This record gives sequence, C-alpha cells and structure tokens, in this order.
Amino acid sequence: MSIVVVGSVAYDGIKSPSGQVDRCLGGAATYFSLAASYFTQVRVVAVVGEDFTEQDEEVLRTRQVDTTGIEHAAGKSFFWRGEYGENLNEARTLETQLNVFQNFNPQVPTQYLDSEFLFLANIDPVLQGNVRRQMNGRVKLVGGDTMNYWITDPNHRKNLLQTLKGVDVLLINDAEAKLIAQESSVPRAARKVLEMGPRALVIKHGEYGATVFFKEREFGGGSHPFRAPALPMEEVRDPTGAGDSFAGGFMGYIASQKSLDREVFKRAMFYGGVMGSFAVERFGTERLQSLTRKEIDARYQVFRELTHIE
Amino acid sequence: MSIVVVGSVAYDGIKSPSGQVDRCLGGAATYFSLAASYFTQVRVVAVVGEDFTEQDEEVLRTRQVDTTGIEHAAGKSFFWRGEYGENLNEARTLETQLNVFQNFNPQVPTQYLDSEFLFLANIDPVLQGNVRRQMNGRVKLVGGDTMNYWITDPNHRKNLLQTLKGVDVLLINDAEAKLIAQESSVPRAARKVLEMGPRALVIKHGEYGATVFFKEREFGGGSHPFRAPALPMEEVRDPTGAGDSFAGGFMGYIASQKSLDREVFKRAMFYGGVMGSFAVERFGTERLQSLTRKEIDARYQVFRELTHIE
Repeated sequence: MSIVVVGSVAYDGIKSPSGQVDRCLGGAATYFSLAASYFTQVRVVAVVGEDFTEQDEEVLRTRQVDTTGIEHAAGKSFFWRGEYGENLNEARTLETQLNVFQNFNPQVPTQYLDSEFLFLANIDPVLQGNVRRQMNGRVKLVGGDTMNYWITDPNHRKNLLQTLKGVDVLLINDAEAKLIAQESSVPRAARKVLEMGPRALVIKHGEYGATVFFKEREFGGGSHPFRAPALPMEEVRDPTGAGDSFAGGFMGYIASQKSLDREVFKRAMFYGGVMGSFAVERFGTERLQSLTRKEIDARYQVFRELTHIE
Repeated sequence: MSIVVVGSVAYDGIKSPSGQVDRCLGGAATYFSLAASYFTQVRVVAVVGEDFTEQDEEVLRTRQVDTTGIEHAAGKSFFWRGEYGENLNEARTLETQLNVFQNFNPQVPTQYLDSEFLFLANIDPVLQGNVRRQMNGRVKLVGGDTMNYWITDPNHRKNLLQTLKGVDVLLINDAEAKLIAQESSVPRAARKVLEMGPRALVIKHGEYGATVFFKEREFGGGSHPFRAPALPMEEVRDPTGAGDSFAGGFMGYIASQKSLDREVFKRAMFYGGVMGSFAVERFGTERLQSLTRKEIDARYQVFRELTHIE
C-alpha cells in the first residue's frame, strides 16, 4: 500500500565533530521518503526552488518515490545550516532560509488520493490540516510530527491542537511531548497528548530508543506502552534526519502490512530505530540511498537481540 | 550464595515535588542491601553514629541482612539533604555531613569472608580497594560503583583507576562513564572503561533503562551489548537510591544463580530495573522494606513485555 508524505525537500549545510558539508540534499520529507521507500511505495508533496537539481530529484526517483507532487516554484529552495557539538543530541541552527517554503500551499495530486497512509512531516499545522482534508477519501492512518515553534507560539498552538484531532499516530521527542502537554513527566505528558486526538503516541528518546503509548482499546490492546531500544553507536557522523528516518521506517513498515495490530506496531518501532541508525552513519541522506532490505533486516535482528530475553 | 556490601548507612533529608521528609534511613549500602535481600543473603559493612536507632538497624535485620559489620562509632551518622526539581533525574545537594564517615576504616568481619560476591558501593576508592583485599579469599565476582568526585579529582582518580583493576562489573551512569573515559560518546566511553579493568560495564540511563557492555569473550559471549528498558513511570516520588537499588537487584540476582552466563546477566539487568522502579515509588526505603518476591516477579514480567517482540 502506498503512503503520501508532505514536508520539506531542501538543502542543508551541516557541521559535526566528524566533518562538514556545505550543501547537501535534506529536508524531513526527503529523509522520510528514502527510509519508507524500502518498505512501500512513497509519494511526496513538497515545494522546491529553481536551484533544485535534476540529480537530487533523481535520488528520490531511484528509490521509486513518486515526485509528481513536488512543485517547482520561482526562487530558491529551503535551506538550513546547523552545527552539532560533542553532544550530538542537539543541533545549533546557524541559518534558516525559508525561500519558496514561505508560500508553500501543498496540493495533493489527484493520482495520490487513493493512498491509505499519510504522513504530515513537521510544517505549519494549518498546512498539515489542509493536506489531511485533501486526503479525506481513502486514508486509513495518519502519522504526524511537529516541533517547539508550533507548540509554544499561542496562535500556532491553537492550529496544532486542531490538526492533532486528525492525527492517528503522533511522533515527537521527549521535550516536545512535555511542551505540548505542559507536563514534566513523560508518561503523564503522554496520557495528556493521547487525550488531544492521537490514538497512539511515539516518543523518541534519541540515543535511548523510543516508546509508544496507546490509547486504551486502540489497535487491539490495552494502554500498556512498548519501548524499543536504540543501538549504542560508536560512530554517529551526522544526526540530521534521524527522527524523520525513524518516522519513515515506522510508517513505511506499517503501510506494508495487511493489518495493524500491536505486534505490527512493535515491529514498526524497531524498523524505525533501524532506519534512524542507518541515517546517522553518513552525512546527509547518503546512507539511506544505497541500502538493501537484507541489510535492514540484519540490523533489525541486531536490535532485537540487543534487548531480547528468553 | 551470600554477598558482602560496603558503603554508607546513613540518614537523608529529601524534598521532591511529591513531598518531603526531614530525616529517614538512607545510604547506598542500605538501598543495596534491601534490594538484594529479596534474592540472596546480604552482609553489610558500614559505620554509623550514636544517633543511629535500633529500629533502623532492625529494618535491615527484618530483611535477614547481616549487620555484624556495621560499626557503631562515637559521633553522628552520615547525613545528606537534597532536593529534586521537576526534572527528577538530578538531585541538588543542600547539605552533606560526613560525620563518622570521615574516619571510616571498613573492617570485614571474619564470618563474612566466605562470601563469593562483593559490592563496593560509592565510597573512597582507597577504602574500596582495602575491602577488596580483605575479601581476597573466596570472592568470585566484584561489583562496584563510583561518582564524579572520585573521577575528576586527580589524586582520587589515580586511586580509582587502581581499584578498577579489581572490579569485575562496574555500575555507573552515562555522565560518569564519559568522565572516566574522557569520551563524549557512551559506546566509545564503554570500550575505554573496559580496558581499565572491568569485564563488564553497566551504564544506567535513568528513566531510559540501562545497557551492559562486555569485554570480548568474558562471561561466555562476544562484545555485543544488552539493553534493558526502564518502565515509564507516571509517579516518581523520590529518586533517591534508585541506582543503588538497581545494583542490589542486579548483584542480588546474580548471586542467587548457580552460574554466570549472558542470559543470567540479561535477567539481572531486568531485576535491577525492577528494584529501581520500586525504590522510587515511595520516600526513602519504604517501598523496599515491604515487597514480596511475587510482586517483584510480576513487575519483571511487565518489564519483559514492555520490550518483548516475537
């Protein structure tokens, strides 16, 4: 089954203790699409500028990602430049040029409308809501992401809370969960977020893995959470896109399955972690471009053994 | 099989968002002993002052902990007072009175010398080394803990590195591991610490669980780490002693087993997490005083299901 993703396709400049690149393909929808493409057909909705190269669009097409929904607008592509210190968990943003993204008004191509899965990457909650409505026909499961900026600004927050009502699975990190719920304890925050709309909440803990919390009775089970570990990695070159790659592996795996029960969710959590772990091994999207399903499944086994007990 | 623990038996004053107690039984060796007592015979070596009450010693004896090695010295018991903010991961120390602990010269009673397990809780590495030597006869496995103070001060560090050579399993947290190894990545830090002596290194991640790293070929396996999750807990009343209770559950379970292979280690990691999770549910040692093995095993199953995948 296919999945539609809306979000940024962009260029990044990245510096980390392992090196630096001045300009490389990036953006949440890019990382998501590449990661999900190993599991299912992906269709992307985004906007790029005149500087966006044919080769970079080809990176997506090579992975069978449908790029019909990438609008080419006058101006320059979204550009982000950031730096990671020794603590790789947090990027310091040095420069953000919204460029064509500033007037982004996502239009879902007609031929995308039969997709049963949708992922709303981190963009303005109003645009997330628009895309959600355009997809109202067939969509079975909506995943979503957001960030501090939309959570803390009072006007954006209102829009976000509205959009959350149409999101089945929200994927955010600890700090974002605490901010949305205005709660200092992660499990209490999770319970509050689940009252805002989502039927499941995936909280990403960076190098410590991720936990999924469920609303009681949703997806065939009780309210017990499930936690997937992350692999302790000696060499993290570039953390950019780890969360979007997690979301791509997670949603992509779910979209590839016939039904959606708790066991599928659990495996999806592991596949999310696996794709995030690949993403950070090289700068930009390099590692995600050249994987095989065999490599992915081998690492899935490593993740499983990492925490498996008889 | 029995386990000897050396460390502090003390009084604490604790304030957290859930309440406060001005004075309650505390100390690393106390938490460790109570937690381990559900798995094996525990023998404690410590020093207390004239203010230490018969009732508090009885708390340990009720759990069949051998208190022969608790020296009663002139003066007052070690006293620590601290406060937790909304972020329960870190205590702010408001007061530390070393009192009788200042001249602590631990003596292992003769009748303890047949114990095959030893835990060196967080005290001066020189004293840890002394106790290690007194136990040289029978001891099969030595566990140990330490803290920033001993790691960063150049003189203490020298002593610590000496003591580490006689420690089989070191249990510390992320920050301590990074400090000992002078490395910013936890997995790289782990590898360095394992070159300093320990055959296994347990790194505790607070609310995210713990990871054990192994030296290649030790305890019947390769160098693959194992990660045990922690239960997402809505109500953490008092984090004091969580790490010592983890160590008690971990070492206590190991001491209760006939052999020590990787599977035993994995289960020990889960039992460590279980005992830590009980400890934080009430102030001080209250919860650890009144458990049953049935409650412990039920929570072990919850931990296992939290991360179990078919």
